[in-house]
Amino acid sequence: MSQSQGQLVIIGGAEDKEGDCKVLREFVRRAGGVNARIVVMTVATEMPREVGEDYIRVFERLGAENVRIVDTVHRDDASSPTYIEAVNKATGVFFTGGDQARITSILKDTELDAAIHQRYQEGIVIGGTSAGAAMMPDVMIVEGDSETNPRVNVVEMGPGMGFLPGIVVDQHFLQRGRLGRLLSALSQQPAVLGFGIDENTAVVVQDNKFEVVGEGAVTVVDVADIIHTNIDDILKDEAIAICGAKLHVLPDGYKFDLAARKPIVEADAPREVATTNA
Amino acid sequence: MSQSQGQLVIIGGAEDKEGDCKVLREFVRRAGGVNARIVVMTVATEMPREVGEDYIRVFERLGAENVRIVDTVHRDDASSPTYIEAVNKATGVFFTGGDQARITSILKDTELDAAIHQRYQEGIVIGGTSAGAAMMPDVMIVEGDSETNPRVNVVEMGPGMGFLPGIVVDQHFLQRGRLGRLLSALSQQPAVLGFGIDENTAVVVQDNKFEVVGEGAVTVVDVADIIHTNIDDILKDEAIAICGAKLHVLPDGYKFDLAARKPIVEADAPREVATTNA
Repeated sequence: MSQSQGQLVIIGGAEDKEGDCKVLREFVRRAGGVNARIVVMTVATEMPREVGEDYIRVFERLGAENVRIVDTVHRDDASSPTYIEAVNKATGVFFTGGDQARITSILKDTELDAAIHQRYQEGIVIGGTSAGAAMMPDVMIVEGDSETNPRVNVVEMGPGMGFLPGIVVDQHFLQRGRLGRLLSALSQQPAVLGFGIDENTAVVVQDNKFEVVGEGAVTVVDVADIIHTNIDDILKDEAIAICGAKLHVLPDGYKFDLAARKPIVEADAPREVATTNA
Repeated sequence: MSQSQGQLVIIGGAEDKEGDCKVLREFVRRAGGVNARIVVMTVATEMPREVGEDYIRVFERLGAENVRIVDTVHRDDASSPTYIEAVNKATGVFFTGGDQARITSILKDTELDAAIHQRYQEGIVIGGTSAGAAMMPDVMIVEGDSETNPRVNVVEMGPGMGFLPGIVVDQHFLQRGRLGRLLSALSQQPAVLGFGIDENTAVVVQDNKFEVVGEGAVTVVDVADIIHTNIDDILKDEAIAICGAKLHVLPDGYKFDLAARKPIVEADAPREVATTNA
């Protein structure tokens, strides 16, 4: 993992914007609280005005007054000095939901992309929800079927924005039944950690660790030490086998060490569940 | 696990009845093929005639001519000498889908239940789909939410029919996004193995091993060696944490050793996925 100074707030979609806004509150707090300067990137959505104004409203309600929308519709827009200056002054950059393929096709390897990465290295917070979460890794899920067993043709993968290498992110995870899709994605690329992030739930990454914030859970699938897979032997529409993956389900407050690939918990005494008559 | 001589065909629901009928074909073959004597138990469904006749049609199409319906509507029906004789002569007993609570409330601890277990010990095949799959363990999922993160109040558990102890079965697994529900069930009772069985897919149990047959996969979650759970500390509506579970996704043809709790595969050399630039 890269030794970035910045933080990531990777949200599984459908985060609360009306109630206590626990997840967005965490983003704003880490971006500097009432002194935050936030850029809302609406590149993923085809309704930038509505979506962008929703976020301005909630961020302002939480006390961040300095919020502006940057809406890049074409790659040319991503050279705009005004936009680059906005990013250069930002303490938080937030990517809305929409279509993750729009984020990479319009932004990737542009001057604005470089500016965002530069600011991230300098320590600001990059947030994203749904499509804005999917784009975080080096290789992302572009699109794919939910509620299916793992098969190669379930998912289309593509280059992501590269904020967090070595992982795959899926969002709306348990709400849309995406275990098969996440396993399909993991089996097709070098990443060994899959993050299945629930709705209204975030993975908050800092210093090569993450903490879970929100209503649901983050399902971490680790395929580093699997004992068997058939992925090299099957055709596109055949069922993937995976034997010996590790599974962690981490709700609010749980922490995970990305370098050690382990939840940070006191190891409990093994529960003798098999021999108990509960 | 008990040392039964019998076999189980545990089907995740929605098995093919029009095409090659791979899963039901397996049941009929193991029940004796064209010489099978099959009892179709319609206790789970409120449409016993329609559902039962569907199975008669498909079993007959596959060459099993000796098929009869046993429909127990009340517990009294489960003392019927005619029904008990039918079971005593059967080489295969098949439980249809419907509501698994009907199976246990009408059948459990009746003479007919005893007869079915006796025949199972003697070596016949017990099959079941959907509700007929859920009821197989000692403790079963009575009902519960799909597409949710694991919480205690997601599932209602109850006594099952006890054909395969030490496990929990969930069905329509990846098709209905039931990982959270299976984990909720597992965390609440002594079983350490959860079987998430996809639609048109079966776990075929014999000699303390199983083999997967069908279109989808069986997702096996093993919580025997977890390093942490919060299950003893949380209230009903709070999120369950599980750290260090094992996960196996097994498609058609894959085998699993229930005593060793391991897939039966040649151990591949560990793939150095993390260091490859694919």
